[in-house]
Amino acid sequence: MASKKYSLFFSSSLLLNLLFLYLFFVRETELTWSRKASREAEVVASLPCSGHGRAFLDGLLLEGEPVCECYSCYQGSDCSEFPLDCPADADSGDPLFLEPFWMKEVESSSVMVAGWYRMSYIMGDGLRVSRELERHIRMLHEVVRNANTSGKFIVFGVGSTQLLNAVVHALSANGSSSPASVVSQVPTYPAYQFQTELFKSQCFEWKGDASQWKNATSDSSRKFIEFVTSPNNPDGRLQKAVLEGSSVRTIHDHAYYWPHFTSIPAPADEDVMLFSISKVTGHAGSRFGWAIIKDEGLYDRILRYVDLNTMGVSHDTQLRALNLVKQVLKGGGRDFFGFGYRTMKDRWERLNKSLSISKRFSVQKLTPHYCTYFREVAGPSPAYAWLKCEMEEDEDCYAVLRAAGIIGRDGNIFGVQNRYVRLSLIKSRDDFDWLLRRIDALVAEEGVQSI
Amino acid sequence: MASKKYSLFFSSSLLLNLLFLYLFFVRETELTWSRKASREAEVVASLPCSGHGRAFLDGLLLEGEPVCECYSCYQGSDCSEFPLDCPADADSGDPLFLEPFWMKEVESSSVMVAGWYRMSYIMGDGLRVSRELERHIRMLHEVVRNANTSGKFIVFGVGSTQLLNAVVHALSANGSSSPASVVSQVPTYPAYQFQTELFKSQCFEWKGDASQWKNATSDSSRKFIEFVTSPNNPDGRLQKAVLEGSSVRTIHDHAYYWPHFTSIPAPADEDVMLFSISKVTGHAGSRFGWAIIKDEGLYDRILRYVDLNTMGVSHDTQLRALNLVKQVLKGGGRDFFGFGYRTMKDRWERLNKSLSISKRFSVQKLTPHYCTYFREVAGPSPAYAWLKCEMEEDEDCYAVLRAAGIIGRDGNIFGVQNRYVRLSLIKSRDDFDWLLRRIDALVAEEGVQSI
Repeated sequence: MASKKYSLFFSSSLLLNLLFLYLFFVRETELTWSRKASREAEVVASLPCSGHGRAFLDGLLLEGEPVCECYSCYQGSDCSEFPLDCPADADSGDPLFLEPFWMKEVESSSVMVAGWYRMSYIMGDGLRVSRELERHIRMLHEVVRNANTSGKFIVFGVGSTQLLNAVVHALSANGSSSPASVVSQVPTYPAYQFQTELFKSQCFEWKGDASQWKNATSDSSRKFIEFVTSPNNPDGRLQKAVLEGSSVRTIHDHAYYWPHFTSIPAPADEDVMLFSISKVTGHAGSRFGWAIIKDEGLYDRILRYVDLNTMGVSHDTQLRALNLVKQVLKGGGRDFFGFGYRTMKDRWERLNKSLSISKRFSVQKLTPHYCTYFREVAGPSPAYAWLKCEMEEDEDCYAVLRAAGIIGRDGNIFGVQNRYVRLSLIKSRDDFDWLLRRIDALVAEEGVQSI
Repeated sequence: MASKKYSLFFSSSLLLNLLFLYLFFVRETELTWSRKASREAEVVASLPCSGHGRAFLDGLLLEGEPVCECYSCYQGSDCSEFPLDCPADADSGDPLFLEPFWMKEVESSSVMVAGWYRMSYIMGDGLRVSRELERHIRMLHEVVRNANTSGKFIVFGVGSTQLLNAVVHALSANGSSSPASVVSQVPTYPAYQFQTELFKSQCFEWKGDASQWKNATSDSSRKFIEFVTSPNNPDGRLQKAVLEGSSVRTIHDHAYYWPHFTSIPAPADEDVMLFSISKVTGHAGSRFGWAIIKDEGLYDRILRYVDLNTMGVSHDTQLRALNLVKQVLKGGGRDFFGFGYRTMKDRWERLNKSLSISKRFSVQKLTPHYCTYFREVAGPSPAYAWLKCEMEEDEDCYAVLRAAGIIGRDGNIFGVQNRYVRLSLIKSRDDFDWLLRRIDALVAEEGVQSI
């Protein structure tokens, strides 16, 4: 009897060993050359940094070990220290509000770049662009219904930043003898001006606020190029072109035309449209944007600009962008845009609640609209608050906020008086929470002063 | 006795069970979120493509499966077909001769990019550049002894391509009222001209061959910017500036100043030096280059240009570049540069042997020199052959070669008469072998004709 029991245990043990042998070797041989890079990435990623920072593969090392890079304000080797005198930095348009989504979806959103991956200047078909990425971008617009790409060309750029001037260049190159006037209605994204002026071109020059030139477009010898940002940066309004006429060309910058920042009334269908991965997936550090272009000649000229300027866009970045767009597309984008929209709407509501009792500060009024993507009425969820100092004495609104420990972006950078300040709502949760604490304190002061 | 034996076996089996349990779970938990991306990369990489092509993660799919992208000439789903009428394409400077090195070193040269990796516009210290990468680039120059970086600034660019104009812009921005004349001694790399002309700037204009302006530099009101490519593209010669004087600024393009293309007589130590990852590690598709700049004001202006033009360089690309430079540095770069040098020297010798009996074609004469990196006399190993058609009737050398099934780059693109053609020697082994076969056949014709 005992021997039988023994025998049974022994057989089970042997079988278990065989099973382990199988699992062990099958699993072990499953990954080969990629194990090392995977392990390195996981080791670095495993640093907790108290949830207020991250360690990166290319971060600084301390005695050979990766160190935490803390989110703004946080300090210390594990990012656990928070000095209470730290200002709330709401300056940059860093879209870190989407980081938690990608940390949750890290398994499907990460990508292994082999050492020999696409070393050539060109991809398989002789072009510098990934056809798969282009196909997925078209799918993305179709799913989100925010742009009509059919029958149109797509050019990739090193961020939509590169494409701003690429398009201005291409629109003005085959033009009249006098330089084209580049304009945009204020308040407007300052990069249009900075970049247009940077190149000191013979073909175009910056001419400021588009509204000032409404009556000048009848002069057909004068060429205008108008940047229309919709939704607008800084104030989130959906915008139309100000200038009209045969001598006017319009560049529609739709960087923020995604369901997390605005309701989508209808697909944009203009001749020249710009988009950026930075404001879709939140990957601002991966310099990637695209232009959707109707006219083939214009497309060719933009392509030539990007070719001569940078010889296209990094293949590594295109690979990463493809992988990210694929993840966004899963389930028709509901998970991704749902997360983004809920986050932004919540922040907007919290900010408005904080400011609702203030007489000193106001933000832009935005109303709910029907969103064809969510198939329901969607409340406002803008990327930025366009804050106004209402009191006569608060003429320098930026300075008023700065004195209260809040760093915004001065309104005059956007071409308007400095009664306005842009506050970024798209940074990390830590950043937003701290901003709101500072605002609450500032608004609470009003109550004290009025007593 | 039998029971004792049983017991021994049983205990061993149990111990083995425990060992497997340990190994299984420890190994299993070793990799978590990165397994999926690793597996996907390995599956795609495992396609053999007959050794004449590669499959890529972002390649086209056929019924959901990755397909081979064949090297030039090769065809068929597994790249096994070779149509004998295919021309030998020696046109582009695609540095694929280094691909075999990275395929061998795939384990240490691959990198895992997490979905949440560096989404911000900036790195930890508020800059757009990886300090680790900058540190490793300085180490690389120190190890190779090809450039003195001490006390100098480093700017990153989207390839050295972006930096060409960034530097011209920065050098001419704070200048005289008349535009600076941009020049380069012929034969010269055509991108200098194409890019200078592209921007149609008020501050600079392309003025052709530097040699023509030797007597014009005494006019101090006239500003010159001279590109000096050393070793030169197309002919591999080490070059010095042609123009001198207080109104001359020189940009030293050292893209090819690495031990696989030239002996290194001494570290370059000029005020403005350009380098590119494309011609060091061979990763042309990863758009990354750097400028080494002595003057801080100039550095600031270049940085501002890159910032406004593209908001810096993709973080993904910087991460990959860091990893590649780390691998190059292993063992003082001996493995890497040894492989590169042996490959290029062998190709140059084989080409010269093939042409040695030709009276119709010649290539540039290059002599061995002492290389401070290899610490010995190194034979020539240039990136390009600068081929000349010697016969009076072969005036259009490009056409002569084209008729013989060889695609070169026409000499007049480099600013000289079309008796010259540049042949790229840095493409894949398949490309080079096929080029040599075509050249052998062409040279053999001479023998037939002279009988």
